[in-house]
Amino acid sequence: MAAPNKQLLLRQRPTGMPDRSHFSLVEAPLTDPEEGGVLVRVLFLSIDPTNRIWMSDRDQYLPPVALGAVMRGAGVGRVVASRSPKFREGDVVTGLLGWQEYARLPAAEAAGLSVVPAGFPLPLSALLGVCGLTGVTAWYGLHDIAAARAGETVVVSAAAGAVGSIVGQLGKIAGCRVVGIAGGPEKCALLTGEFGFDAAVDYKREGWRAALAEATPRGVDVDFENVGGDIMQAVMRRMNLGGRVALCGMISGYNSEAPSLGDFGTVLMKRLTVRGFIVLDYADRWGEAVGKLAALVVQGRLRHRETMVDGLENAPDALARLFDGSTTGKLVVRVDPAA
Amino acid sequence: MAAPNKQLLLRQRPTGMPDRSHFSLVEAPLTDPEEGGVLVRVLFLSIDPTNRIWMSDRDQYLPPVALGAVMRGAGVGRVVASRSPKFREGDVVTGLLGWQEYARLPAAEAAGLSVVPAGFPLPLSALLGVCGLTGVTAWYGLHDIAAARAGETVVVSAAAGAVGSIVGQLGKIAGCRVVGIAGGPEKCALLTGEFGFDAAVDYKREGWRAALAEATPRGVDVDFENVGGDIMQAVMRRMNLGGRVALCGMISGYNSEAPSLGDFGTVLMKRLTVRGFIVLDYADRWGEAVGKLAALVVQGRLRHRETMVDGLENAPDALARLFDGSTTGKLVVRVDPAA
Repeated sequence: MAAPNKQLLLRQRPTGMPDRSHFSLVEAPLTDPEEGGVLVRVLFLSIDPTNRIWMSDRDQYLPPVALGAVMRGAGVGRVVASRSPKFREGDVVTGLLGWQEYARLPAAEAAGLSVVPAGFPLPLSALLGVCGLTGVTAWYGLHDIAAARAGETVVVSAAAGAVGSIVGQLGKIAGCRVVGIAGGPEKCALLTGEFGFDAAVDYKREGWRAALAEATPRGVDVDFENVGGDIMQAVMRRMNLGGRVALCGMISGYNSEAPSLGDFGTVLMKRLTVRGFIVLDYADRWGEAVGKLAALVVQGRLRHRETMVDGLENAPDALARLFDGSTTGKLVVRVDPAA
Repeated sequence: MAAPNKQLLLRQRPTGMPDRSHFSLVEAPLTDPEEGGVLVRVLFLSIDPTNRIWMSDRDQYLPPVALGAVMRGAGVGRVVASRSPKFREGDVVTGLLGWQEYARLPAAEAAGLSVVPAGFPLPLSALLGVCGLTGVTAWYGLHDIAAARAGETVVVSAAAGAVGSIVGQLGKIAGCRVVGIAGGPEKCALLTGEFGFDAAVDYKREGWRAALAEATPRGVDVDFENVGGDIMQAVMRRMNLGGRVALCGMISGYNSEAPSLGDFGTVLMKRLTVRGFIVLDYADRWGEAVGKLAALVVQGRLRHRETMVDGLENAPDALARLFDGSTTGKLVVRVDPAA
C-alpha cells in the first residue's frame, strides 16, 4: 500500500463564511495501520453546520481542528485493513473519519467508530442522515430534550434542513401540531407537502412574524431551535408558560465572532426551560434511535431528502452552501465514486 | 368601621429607577368586607425586585398593576373582620395584601391568602423572608430547578441579598462548594463569615472575573442567577458541561427597557439547562418548604438578616434601595407600628 491519500487540511480559520481558501488539498502516502488501529476507505462524508464550528477556535464542545491537520468530519466508510480485534476487513463503519479518502486511525481513534450491523436496509449514505447524526439529533432532541407530547405545538426552524425536516415528521408521528420556519416558497411547499407539516412560515416574506402568530393559535410549547438570532426571538415571544427550547444549533451566528444573544428575560417570565444539547452525548443510546428511524423509513412513514455532492475536493464548496440556504435535506459528499 | 385606610396607588410607570413620584399616598374610607370576603390589618410588607416588574407594563408573569390601583405587594397581616368561612378574626395570613394599611379583599382575592398555623416559632416578619417568598424561592430554586448535588460547585449572584444569602447556606447544608458574588468588602465578609460561604467575589473590584475563576477551580455546576447581564455572562463562561442555571431574577435589567441579553451560544456548546422559575408556581408545595426552613432556623443552622423600614409611606424609598445595593438580607416595611 503506497498509493497516495488525498486529504483536505485546515489551512486558515475563517472569520466569516468558509470557502476553498481555508483548506489545502494534499496527497500523503498511504501506509498500513499501526498495531490496534485500522485503515478505512471513506465512502461518504457528512457536511454539517458543526464543521464550521470546528474550524474556529472559539470555545466549543470538542477541541478546535488544529491548523495543518486533516479537517474533522463524520463519515461512513469500509475497513480495508485492520490490526484491531474490533474490526474485520469489509466492515462498514461510521464515525469521525475526516475529510480524506482513507482514514488511518490509531487504536484510540478507532475506538470511536461504530460497526454497522450487516443487513442495514437503506443506502449507506442514510447512515449520515436520517439514520445518523441528523436523525438521531432529531429523535433525542424532540423526545428527550424537549419531551414533546401529543397535542402540543412544536415549532422548528431551518425546517427544510436535514434535522428540521425529520423533527417535523417525528412531531407529527407523536401527535403534535407542527409548524416549520424556512426560507422561500419552494421550501415551505415542501414542508406542508412532502413532509406533512401543519403549517410553514417563510421568514423571507414581509410579515412573517404575524404569519407565525397565526400558525400558532395556541402558542408554542416546544421550540426545536436550529437558527438562533431573530428567528429564535420571534418564536420565544410565542412560547407558552413552561415551554421548552431544545437548543440544537444556531446557524445564524456561526459565521460571526459576536455571541448569539437572546432575551433571557423571556426565559424567566415564561418559566421556560432552555437546554443545549449535542447528539454525541447520546452515543450510548445511538443504536436504539437508529433502529426506530430505519423502521419508520422502511415503513414509508418518514421521508428524507439528500443533496449529494461528488468528490472530496468539493467538500469546502458544499460546506459554504449550507449557509446560503441553497440545499434541502441532508448534504453529503460522495468520496468514493464507486459508493 | 369608618376610619381612613392609607394606601399607596401606582401613579406613573417608571422608565428607570422607581421613586416616590411614581406613587400617590391617599386615604380611603374603610368599610366592612363583602360577603365571602375578609378585612386584613397589614402588619409587614415584603419589598422585592419583582415589585419593580409589576410597576412596568412589559410582558410579565402577572398582569401589570393598573395606573391608579393600589400597588401590589406581598405581606403578612391579621384578619380583623371575616365574612368567609375560611378565615377567623385573629388569623395571621400571608399573601398579596397590597401597599396599604388594611386590605379589604373580596372572596376571589381572599382565596389566595394562606393562614399561618398557630405556633409559628419565629417573628412574623420571617414569613416574608426566610420562611416566605424569599426562603421558598431559595429552597425550590436550589433543590428542584437546579437540582444541586453534594460535591458540586454552586455560584450565587446578589449573594448578600435576601434570596442569595439563603441559597448559599442551603447549598452548604447540601454539601456543595458555594461561591457568592456581591458588591463591596462588607458584604463579602458577611458571606464568608456569618453565612459560611466557601468564597466571595466582589464584583466592584478590578479583576473580579479572575477572582471568580480562582474561586471555582473545578468550574461551576450550578448558577443560581439573580442578577443577569455581565455577572451572569462571567459565571456562564465558568460553567461545566451539563451545568444548570436556575434563572430566578435579573435585577440588573429591571430598570431598563432593553431585553436582558445573554449568550445562548454557551448554552449550546456546554449543553447547559437554563430554567426560568417563579416561586408562585410552587404554591401547592409551600408548606413543605416553610416547615423545613423554619426548622433549620430554629436549630441555628440557617441565619437570616432583615432590613426593617418603618411606615407604609416609606415603601417607595425602600424599593429604590433594593437597586442601589445598600441593603443586606430581606427588606421589610413595618406597616403596623405595634407589630
